Amino acid sequence: MRFFSDNAAPAHPRVLEAIAASNCMDTAYDGDSWSRRLDAAFSDLFETQVAALWVTSGTAANCLALAVLCPPFGAIVCHRDAHIENDEAGAPAFFTNGAKLMLVDGEGAKVSPEAVADACDRVRKDVHQVQPAALSITNATEYGLAYRSEEVGALGELARSRGLAFHMDGARFANALVSTGESPADVTWRAGIDALSFGFVKNGGLNAEALILFRPELAEEVAIRRKRAGHLLSKGRMCAAQILAMLEDGLWLDNARGANAAAQTLASAAPGRLVYPVEANEVFLRVSSEEAATLRSAGFDFYDWAPGEIRLVTSWDQGGEAVERLAAAIARL
Amino acid sequence: MRFFSDNAAPAHPRVLEAIAASNCMDTAYDGDSWSRRLDAAFSDLFETQVAALWVTSGTAANCLALAVLCPPFGAIVCHRDAHIENDEAGAPAFFTNGAKLMLVDGEGAKVSPEAVADACDRVRKDVHQVQPAALSITNATEYGLAYRSEEVGALGELARSRGLAFHMDGARFANALVSTGESPADVTWRAGIDALSFGFVKNGGLNAEALILFRPELAEEVAIRRKRAGHLLSKGRMCAAQILAMLEDGLWLDNARGANAAAQTLASAAPGRLVYPVEANEVFLRVSSEEAATLRSAGFDFYDWAPGEIRLVTSWDQGGEAVERLAAAIARL
Amino acid sequence: MRFFSDNAAPAHPRVLEAIAASNCMDTAYDGDSWSRRLDAAFSDLFETQVAALWVTSGTAANCLALAVLCPPFGAIVCHRDAHIENDEAGAPAFFTNGAKLMLVDGEGAKVSPEAVADACDRVRKDVHQVQPAALSITNATEYGLAYRSEEVGALGELARSRGLAFHMDGARFANALVSTGESPADVTWRAGIDALSFGFVKNGGLNAEALILFRPELAEEVAIRRKRAGHLLSKGRMCAAQILAMLEDGLWLDNARGANAAAQTLASAAPGRLVYPVEANEVFLRVSSEEAATLRSAGFDFYDWAPGEIRLVTSWDQGGEAVERLAAAIARL
Amino acid sequence: MRFFSDNAAPAHPRVLEAIAASNCMDTAYDGDSWSRRLDAAFSDLFETQVAALWVTSGTAANCLALAVLCPPFGAIVCHRDAHIENDEAGAPAFFTNGAKLMLVDGEGAKVSPEAVADACDRVRKDVHQVQPAALSITNATEYGLAYRSEEVGALGELARSRGLAFHMDGARFANALVSTGESPADVTWRAGIDALSFGFVKNGGLNAEALILFRPELAEEVAIRRKRAGHLLSKGRMCAAQILAMLEDGLWLDNARGANAAAQTLASAAPGRLVYPVEANEVFLRVSSEEAATLRSAGFDFYDWAPGEIRLVTSWDQGGEAVERLAAAIARL
Repeated sequence: MRFFSDNAAPAHPRVLEAIAASNCMDTAYDGDSWSRRLDAAFSDLFETQVAALWVTSGTAANCLALAVLCPPFGAIVCHRDAHIENDEAGAPAFFTNGAKLMLVDGEGAKVSPEAVADACDRVRKDVHQVQPAALSITNATEYGLAYRSEEVGALGELARSRGLAFHMDGARFANALVSTGESPADVTWRAGIDALSFGFVKNGGLNAEALILFRPELAEEVAIRRKRAGHLLSKGRMCAAQILAMLEDGLWLDNARGANAAAQTLASAAPGRLVYPVEANEVFLRVSSEEAATLRSAGFDFYDWAPGEIRLVTSWDQGGEAVERLAAAIARL
Repeated sequence: MRFFSDNAAPAHPRVLEAIAASNCMDTAYDGDSWSRRLDAAFSDLFETQVAALWVTSGTAANCLALAVLCPPFGAIVCHRDAHIENDEAGAPAFFTNGAKLMLVDGEGAKVSPEAVADACDRVRKDVHQVQPAALSITNATEYGLAYRSEEVGALGELARSRGLAFHMDGARFANALVSTGESPADVTWRAGIDALSFGFVKNGGLNAEALILFRPELAEEVAIRRKRAGHLLSKGRMCAAQILAMLEDGLWLDNARGANAAAQTLASAAPGRLVYPVEANEVFLRVSSEEAATLRSAGFDFYDWAPGEIRLVTSWDQGGEAVERLAAAIARL
Repeated sequence: MRFFSDNAAPAHPRVLEAIAASNCMDTAYDGDSWSRRLDAAFSDLFETQVAALWVTSGTAANCLALAVLCPPFGAIVCHRDAHIENDEAGAPAFFTNGAKLMLVDGEGAKVSPEAVADACDRVRKDVHQVQPAALSITNATEYGLAYRSEEVGALGELARSRGLAFHMDGARFANALVSTGESPADVTWRAGIDALSFGFVKNGGLNAEALILFRPELAEEVAIRRKRAGHLLSKGRMCAAQILAMLEDGLWLDNARGANAAAQTLASAAPGRLVYPVEANEVFLRVSSEEAATLRSAGFDFYDWAPGEIRLVTSWDQGGEAVERLAAAIARL
Repeated sequence: MRFFSDNAAPAHPRVLEAIAASNCMDTAYDGDSWSRRLDAAFSDLFETQVAALWVTSGTAANCLALAVLCPPFGAIVCHRDAHIENDEAGAPAFFTNGAKLMLVDGEGAKVSPEAVADACDRVRKDVHQVQPAALSITNATEYGLAYRSEEVGALGELARSRGLAFHMDGARFANALVSTGESPADVTWRAGIDALSFGFVKNGGLNAEALILFRPELAEEVAIRRKRAGHLLSKGRMCAAQILAMLEDGLWLDNARGANAAAQTLASAAPGRLVYPVEANEVFLRVSSEEAATLRSAGFDFYDWAPGEIRLVTSWDQGGEAVERLAAAIARL
């Protein structure tokens, strides 16, 4: 019973069906009829004109966005625990041709306006120091916290006043949204976000993520950079088809609700052990190494996160018995 | 009836079945049981120990290979009509951090040892000029010609003597092999190839190509660069599963045979119009623009290649009626 | 008696005096009183507001200019024999983070509007091919030809209509100007040039070149990139002082006149042997290898350029006897 | 009376004389008779065979070294206050094509083996995290502390055991050496250093630094990268001549002794105010902003470093009255 990552979960059956349905001769790359529907589908969802491009990984989505938002000689302010800093093998530097990540601290991997302002203020305004050019936050955060529109808006205002472009890594965007109940528009462009990595793979997709550009004029450069990075698939229609299937009838929200509910079940089992509030599909628990061993010997698989701390991640497909059993096992510790 | 690109063809049903069969929770990235079978599967095929990594595009396969074979300050000798020069948006420069393509000429996009030697000889051996560090050829070439082992071997010998690493872009490797009847080993590592982009997408795959390293010690760096380029998919098992399905029971060869046979059918219809011998699944014909219009009005779709020249590409799935009808239409011109 | 390169000549005594005169404690980098005079000095010379930055090599000047004029994914159109293609070790790719040089032909290394238009027209307007973004010409050319304002203007118009930024490598700008007698303004910004590498080192400077930006708003990014490339010297005042000394009383023009006159003396000795008209300080002669040996045995040092062709370069300091003796030796061949 | 930076001091008269003496026609770039003496001169000094190349800035020396010691996908461990992190505009990322700086803490900008080991241990050994590949320390540190051979040796041993290349930024190498009295060999290659940026500009040079490679086989790649970065000056002999003049009769050590003695004079004036021990030519003092204002109004120029802290830097030429007056002024506070 695996709780180590939503990355490893299967794709939703409707996603595979959509791929099969798109498996016919059509224009290659992104000229096909599926790919050409993305802009409209996401413009509807976000209640404004956006440009939407498929990519096959969250790292690609994040770094293509950062590459158009930050020059090679600029810095991207982000949290010290951000995925772009810790889990992308330096891809931001590769895609941007050398931009720097300027790290800030914050509880639960959340970035505050104060932390950003402080980081910027520490930089001398001369050619000897790398000047901040962009801000990137993760929603839900790496510790499963969801940003409210108001919080993003405060960061957006700061970003604007400092001349920073603003990116959101939404690998678990769906989980954050169903947790706060806010609208996609409110927590993104209305709050100042320029580009969003809209994740599907952790939420039932197979290998398609969407890069949403709230400044659609950036799409041309992103498309060039996507090709240049080897990310323009010839049968791209199967990426678009996945995404469209996820959007249809709110499958993306249903899946996220399932994963979040599973996380709440686990959280309820041991509220006193929670390291962070559970606002998405990740549960960080304080357990001793003996307790962790107990859980593992009962057949549960997960990551140790820090001394005395484990991480449990629930997936869209974990609605049932395994979660109940794990919750019970935790309660018994 | 589309003859504009094998890129645009559907995936083979067994490939989709393999994806569905791999659609379960497993280790993420490339630690799953499918991905871990690739080295062995290709080592068998190539009769030597190789390292094999999946990627999702030919551009990624080519450029990851070039990035480990050529330093940023080196040059890659290739044909003026090579895919890496003309159709990858500068991806070789991106992945290698700035290496230069040193272009040579040659009939049918074939590279000769003389042309390579000449290109190298024109470079002064000083720090002011970019020194050649690698050689890349495409097999089958961009004009549908297949290299024989002997030809590759002569290039390999030259490469060795000049200190050049040697890469083969095998986007249509299967088509070349079934055309010459030679063994995978003979036309690659036995002939001096260090790395091969082994194409599946044009041949019935969905979105998985294999990068084969005949110097397996390069695999660690390739794996790092693959992640850094955003090409390490979390559900990578579905890439590996596709490739394994293609290898099983020789599906990759069957598909290539089908496409090649279709090309021969077209070639036979008008031998006098052929621009190049047809040795794979591409047919370049001399037809006037009026004749091209006639074919198009009959429902056939293809690219104009040059004034008075069209390109027809056949796919694994075009065994039947459409090909016969096109052949007849060509014969009637 | 060396005629192999103006690169190797000594600096003019007044340049060394200027360095000595600036050898006092002052603000480091480019905040000193010499550096701060450059904008005004060159704005006077060019009869318009420019930004002017010192750098220590022509390669740095060229490539910093190209880096702000061309994105990493763009192409720079230039002549096949351009210094940036042949003699800068791939520095354009390094500074631009991967831009491509798109080569055109032309007699005497001159670029024509037709050649540029043709090169651009051959590029498909899609994301698979690298799109031209800049044009770079060398004046005087690598074969010693000088562009007239009218010629540059025609290129400038084309550049504007195609959306190309326009750079001039003026390593021998002074030699070109004294040859045509045109004004600095006419042959640069009035003809559409955006940035000029204004050479001093081949013309009596020690190690200072000027990068002139006719779009002064680019200066901030150039200054950042200069620092990032390690080209912001702490005692930069000695670069600025050299340049100011060269500008003072027209020393730069006097030096160029001296070098050009020496070239004319050589050209007059054997008009029938000239490969190109002599319009600057380079003389390309048709001489057999026996004749070349004769000249060498008489103590003259120069480069073989091509079979049956030698290059002679004259310097600002070669006003006298050596030139006369070489001219006589050539006449005697 | 300026105490803000040794960067801003004049060059020593013997350096200017050496430049003048080298101001004759010779082979361009680094083929001249001065440049060709560098390897031998530094091999003597370091008691082992080294390769030595001139460059014109400390940033270039540091980053060329790092580019050959660390791959684009690797990390360089360094102190949070290191020059390469704070004062080079991201040049390490530019020259290495994207390597990451992995920051450690340590009193007085000194790096300890424990801090390096800890930083390395925090990195997961997988492709998702950037793996450390090099270690860089500054000697004397940014706060004027000198490493002893023993300290460097302990770091060198750790570097070897972790597979890290080892670089020393010796912008103030001379100041460190005269402070500890140790030999150049002991504190560098005998302690495990692979490459040293040997500074001259802060110590009486005009614009020449030396990059010393204790693994001479790296010189070829460094030479290529130097050219590619626009740092191969055509009249390079004047860089080499400066360096040779500095080495002659121990001028470099005399100059450093002068600067260090001046720093000691200042330190003695207010031992209770010292933030760090004074082991080179930098003095960090605790003074209130009122006290700082008092010093400034007396004509002394320097940087505020942190709230309640100022930095005074002495130069090779500040042997006399100004230092005494500043010392007295400090004592009077």
